[in-house]
Amino acid sequence: VEGATFVVAVSGGADSVSLLLAVEELQRRKKLRLEFVAAHFNHGLRGKESDKDEAFVRKLAGKLGLEFESERWTTRKKGGNLEQAARDARYEFLAAIADKYQADGVLTGHTLDDQAETFLLRLVRGSGPDGLGAMAAVRPLNKKIGRQLVRPLLAWARRADTEGFCRAAKVKYRNDPMNEDEAFLRVRVRRQLIPLLQDMNPQAVPNLAALAGLLRDETAELSKLGARHLAAAQEVSKDTIDVTVLKELSAAMRKRVLRLWLEQRRGGLRRLDMKHLAAVERLVLQGTGGKTAELPGGERVSVRKGRLIFRKMKVEKSLPEN
Amino acid sequence: VEGATFVVAVSGGADSVSLLLAVEELQRRKKLRLEFVAAHFNHGLRGKESDKDEAFVRKLAGKLGLEFESERWTTRKKGGNLEQAARDARYEFLAAIADKYQADGVLTGHTLDDQAETFLLRLVRGSGPDGLGAMAAVRPLNKKIGRQLVRPLLAWARRADTEGFCRAAKVKYRNDPMNEDEAFLRVRVRRQLIPLLQDMNPQAVPNLAALAGLLRDETAELSKLGARHLAAAQEVSKDTIDVTVLKELSAAMRKRVLRLWLEQRRGGLRRLDMKHLAAVERLVLQGTGGKTAELPGGERVSVRKGRLIFRKMKVEKSLPEN
Repeated sequence: VEGATFVVAVSGGADSVSLLLAVEELQRRKKLRLEFVAAHFNHGLRGKESDKDEAFVRKLAGKLGLEFESERWTTRKKGGNLEQAARDARYEFLAAIADKYQADGVLTGHTLDDQAETFLLRLVRGSGPDGLGAMAAVRPLNKKIGRQLVRPLLAWARRADTEGFCRAAKVKYRNDPMNEDEAFLRVRVRRQLIPLLQDMNPQAVPNLAALAGLLRDETAELSKLGARHLAAAQEVSKDTIDVTVLKELSAAMRKRVLRLWLEQRRGGLRRLDMKHLAAVERLVLQGTGGKTAELPGGERVSVRKGRLIFRKMKVEKSLPEN
Repeated sequence: VEGATFVVAVSGGADSVSLLLAVEELQRRKKLRLEFVAAHFNHGLRGKESDKDEAFVRKLAGKLGLEFESERWTTRKKGGNLEQAARDARYEFLAAIADKYQADGVLTGHTLDDQAETFLLRLVRGSGPDGLGAMAAVRPLNKKIGRQLVRPLLAWARRADTEGFCRAAKVKYRNDPMNEDEAFLRVRVRRQLIPLLQDMNPQAVPNLAALAGLLRDETAELSKLGARHLAAAQEVSKDTIDVTVLKELSAAMRKRVLRLWLEQRRGGLRRLDMKHLAAVERLVLQGTGGKTAELPGGERVSVRKGRLIFRKMKVEKSLPEN
């Protein structure tokens, strides 16, 4: 990675400040020809405090002699899930900065604790095995080839370690009071659920993070296998699949192949839930022609001559008013 | 199953009493030629109260006109895990009663709540994806072919439903005060962890039980696949496997194949932990001849000419004292 450029996402908390200090030290000590850009997304959710966070990161980047980029969130809409919208906007900003600097990747300061929290948050919300894989240590940043999102601390660093690291380096960090607001489910996971689990088993956090990694690997293995079964069932046409192939699979693999097929045909899993998937599965098992499963967004799956058929409904043009 | 005989495990709690009432009613109403035997294992851990539980179940079985069998635990040893030893002794008793009556299976009253508790107990203890599959709704009772352990309530009945069922039937049930003793991790899971999770999501218990089922199906799928890879790698001899085959697998599948191999060669996974498995995996990846991984129980795995070799150590006879 000699000569590579990375954008470091810095909120100002102990974890991302530690990450920034560590990569800067690595670059300086080893005299690596690496470039780092500190990037701060100002969610603007806490007025002056948000601006102080931004000023703090700007100053820190300056001291370390690094480029600094920031943006204030202005496209915020009313309603919906605030955390999700904030995350989407933040990643969009990071990708734009990566583009600007032609960076090889974006680094974030997520720790082992964040991984355990994500696992538990998804467990509480009712995720299946795939969702419980939580965060990837490395994943594509977006559809641009070769640009990665990398989480160097995810597999080993505890949040408390990053606080100790900052103290030892005599660098201050910012505390986000939203991390204390128990109206957010994530905060309840952090402040109520994790302490209880740790009290039952002191190794709870590293165990959960390791479990997430195992589930990520194993569900990826199943999806790889599922994709092969799907390709076999799709030989005739992409929009139809062979019911005979599906019937030969175990229930678990059949569910996975159907989900992969619908994801591929619909361009995503959005709004598709267990209920829709169960309806499509019933078509396979009953095999009765003429029956139809309705999907969200007006798509339909039906059975005919031993094949499942996927159809996007045509949007009917309304007659012009007279 | 016309003419079949089932042993019903009855502790005297609302869940197993409900199960007994339900199967007896089924038999009576539908005039099915089914035989049920009520079986109670008296752990004797609570003196007179344990004997009252036994007397209660005996009387209930008598009222319902069912055969009754019981045994008092006498083989209890000091030390070790009391819950585990009690469970082992109970299942041994149930299997003996199934033998005596030439029964087709044993029914237990485990509910959806028990399934969620088992999942969480294993999560807390650090189980991997296989352990989180929790309890099977149907599994072989032991190595005798065709005799099953069946948990008819596992996939749908809530514990509170069984209490309501007993009240509606005007049948009393016994409460086990050990279910209240927070010295047991399972009781802490039930009384602290589950209420917190339910407060975060009212659907937590059914969600966790469904997740356990999904994990059970998916890990079974992976193990089936792993067994095929193992067979391919074992073609030359059962005690050695081909490193080339292992290297081509994903990390997740390689771990699974190695674990299956060691389970097969050792006759079980007892005392084998992540550390041993990691040592064997390093042999595969480094492929350095001469290196050895020590397993508990004096077994060894080494690498030679591209094959992993499993060896049980010979027990050295000590020289007779002079």
